[in-house]
Amino acid sequence: MKDCIFCKIAAGEIPSATLYEDEKVRVILDLSPAAPGHALVLPKRHYKDVRTMPGTLLGHGMKIAARIGAAQMAALDYQGFNLVQNNGASAGQSVFHFHLHVIPRREGDAVLPLWQPGTSTEQERETVCSRIRAVLEE
Amino acid sequence: MKDCIFCKIAAGEIPSATLYEDEKVRVILDLSPAAPGHALVLPKRHYKDVRTMPGTLLGHGMKIAARIGAAQMAALDYQGFNLVQNNGASAGQSVFHFHLHVIPRREGDAVLPLWQPGTSTEQERETVCSRIRAVLEE
Repeated sequence: MKDCIFCKIAAGEIPSATLYEDEKVRVILDLSPAAPGHALVLPKRHYKDVRTMPGTLLGHGMKIAARIGAAQMAALDYQGFNLVQNNGASAGQSVFHFHLHVIPRREGDAVLPLWQPGTSTEQERETVCSRIRAVLEE
Repeated sequence: MKDCIFCKIAAGEIPSATLYEDEKVRVILDLSPAAPGHALVLPKRHYKDVRTMPGTLLGHGMKIAARIGAAQMAALDYQGFNLVQNNGASAGQSVFHFHLHVIPRREGDAVLPLWQPGTSTEQERETVCSRIRAVLEE
């Protein structure tokens, strides 16, 4: 898509530190990494977010992300990794071209604080469950 | 797998608030939600984490996660959602059966703080890039 920076990076029109490339995706190092090795899986075709991506491309992107995470662990002595993918500005998405973060982790590094676990009653879960199921079954 | 709580939930041996089910996955409400509607996509077969999952199952799980996120938005008036998947205790994984979090979001809700953007020089990226590529090319 014209004026999409991730389209240009994925196509190689803007140079990047590329960890992996094939005909469908390019994996680059994030310029503002949460930790050294933090990578982004970018599809070469433009998709705004996960909702419009084809399943086969999602499967391919996730398999590649898993390989990248394992390689971060082996190459840089990490112990795990998070996969994070944001949809919508309210979810922290800042570039509206699908991208999957691969964030390498070490014990106690506090790199990704994640969420505070909340509470829910069975009654609350039943209510929420039936409202979401109603939309899914529309 | 014996003694795996997510195997038992996915198989329906332990009851759960189920948003969606097919032969490959079950999607349930998290008991300690980051926000109401927070869901988990569970494969029915046991996989410890993303590294051993087949690509087709990952693609299916991600498509379902995208549908769940869209349904959270429509049913509960959210504006976006995060997909988060943790691999290894250091990454915050607490149940060692693959699960993909679908976390619904509203502007300014502070539900998922994400990471502090770091900095990296071109030289640092080149060094990290060649170390990870060396592992990928082994």
